[in-house]
Amino acid sequence: MAEHTYVHGYSTRESERLSDQAETLTDLLHHDTRYPAGSRVLEAGCGIGAQTVILAGNSPGAIITSIDISEESLRKAEQSVRQAGITNVTFRQADIFHLPFPPASFDHIFLCFVLEHLADPEQALGRLRPLLKEGGTITVIEGDHGSTLFHPDNAFARKAVQCLVTLQRQMGGNSLIGRELYPLISYAGFRDVHISPRMVYVDSSRPALVEGFTKLTFTAMVEGIGATVLEKGLMTREEWDRGIAALYRTAEEDGVFCYTFFKATARK
Amino acid sequence: MAEHTYVHGYSTRESERLSDQAETLTDLLHHDTRYPAGSRVLEAGCGIGAQTVILAGNSPGAIITSIDISEESLRKAEQSVRQAGITNVTFRQADIFHLPFPPASFDHIFLCFVLEHLADPEQALGRLRPLLKEGGTITVIEGDHGSTLFHPDNAFARKAVQCLVTLQRQMGGNSLIGRELYPLISYAGFRDVHISPRMVYVDSSRPALVEGFTKLTFTAMVEGIGATVLEKGLMTREEWDRGIAALYRTAEEDGVFCYTFFKATARK
Repeated sequence: MAEHTYVHGYSTRESERLSDQAETLTDLLHHDTRYPAGSRVLEAGCGIGAQTVILAGNSPGAIITSIDISEESLRKAEQSVRQAGITNVTFRQADIFHLPFPPASFDHIFLCFVLEHLADPEQALGRLRPLLKEGGTITVIEGDHGSTLFHPDNAFARKAVQCLVTLQRQMGGNSLIGRELYPLISYAGFRDVHISPRMVYVDSSRPALVEGFTKLTFTAMVEGIGATVLEKGLMTREEWDRGIAALYRTAEEDGVFCYTFFKATARK
Repeated sequence: MAEHTYVHGYSTRESERLSDQAETLTDLLHHDTRYPAGSRVLEAGCGIGAQTVILAGNSPGAIITSIDISEESLRKAEQSVRQAGITNVTFRQADIFHLPFPPASFDHIFLCFVLEHLADPEQALGRLRPLLKEGGTITVIEGDHGSTLFHPDNAFARKAVQCLVTLQRQMGGNSLIGRELYPLISYAGFRDVHISPRMVYVDSSRPALVEGFTKLTFTAMVEGIGATVLEKGLMTREEWDRGIAALYRTAEEDGVFCYTFFKATARK
């Protein structure tokens, strides 16, 4: 995955968004991933380290190797991890399709928000599998933009979300990948594939999620593609503004916002 | 709600579908609803008793009154309850908008798959509220057809599901009501409103749900409106057949099907 194909870009705001996302979703997505002390873990596609900090924090005795294709992201990831006082992570620049590790190097592999950006996620899983020891586990977490539900419902907001799907597809990715994890991981040769959907449900009785998820994670992510959407003529400026306003509207007193992540675990 | 406005009709197959639905969804939807012995419970809109049997089975000491507007449904409900050997339910024909009970008659109120069929669900909740004792609870379970996700994705299947939404709206109902429970119940004057989304996630590692939910509950429900869809020209015969085939396709080895119910609890 070349750096310029990452749909969300590499802006400062995007870095903040990823951190916000990890912070508000930590419990929901990560609470049940704890690796034993001494186990060797590969985090494939660590990006700026938003998940790395959580992963390493939850498994302080594990020996974690985190790779990413982007040197710039890796620098940010290293900085985050250092600032958090974490010492059990080694970073390495690497392409997920050309992995520089001997077979059976790891007890566990972890990927979060990575497959959605790849043109051939099944091939990536196929390249990762030999790196696992027999009986080792893989854990994959992905979103699915098609799971987005909100009240009040709004056609412009739905269209804005659809633009995200369209742009990611144009870049060779798939932002509807969450629902596909079961066949993808099965076809890649793993066994005991188990999928656990995790819905982020937000209404005004959950103010931290209204801020942390509806506004700062999801709507900020959609807003981040605004310039590209207008440039490509996918929506008019007026439609776009109405769509974004409608997404913020769901964060009001009587609004509701839902999004589902899918967490998969499987065994070699 | 007049009998003829019930979108799914009153056929034998529909009766079977509702029973299938309740059987496969029992744990997911009902496991956390248990009323104390001696408490008075109103089930509003019991239909043919698919939920009544579960409700009464889970709360064998509660004194349950189940109402419905349809005499025919009530007869089936009574029969189901009798066959299950349940003795703590009294049935009564009544309109949810004109309830024949004095104020503060009940400790708890329970509604499952009822509000979606009403033109004014907030008014119904407003009529129910005075029947609760101070501090009594209301529990509401509803689906949301907009939450339907499947793999392989298919435009005709999505269009077929959308027909269900359209027809239910034409009859004055709202099959996207699940996401709206928080504001609806809040506006009706209840407090401590808590929403718990319950996704039914189905892949081929869960064969009972493939049969019981994807095929016998959801796809059967969509198939049930086929004649009306064709009659009203909402889809052509070919489109419809392709949509239904695509829904069945999601029940194959590599298919995935997801649907989310929303369960609300609140207090007077």
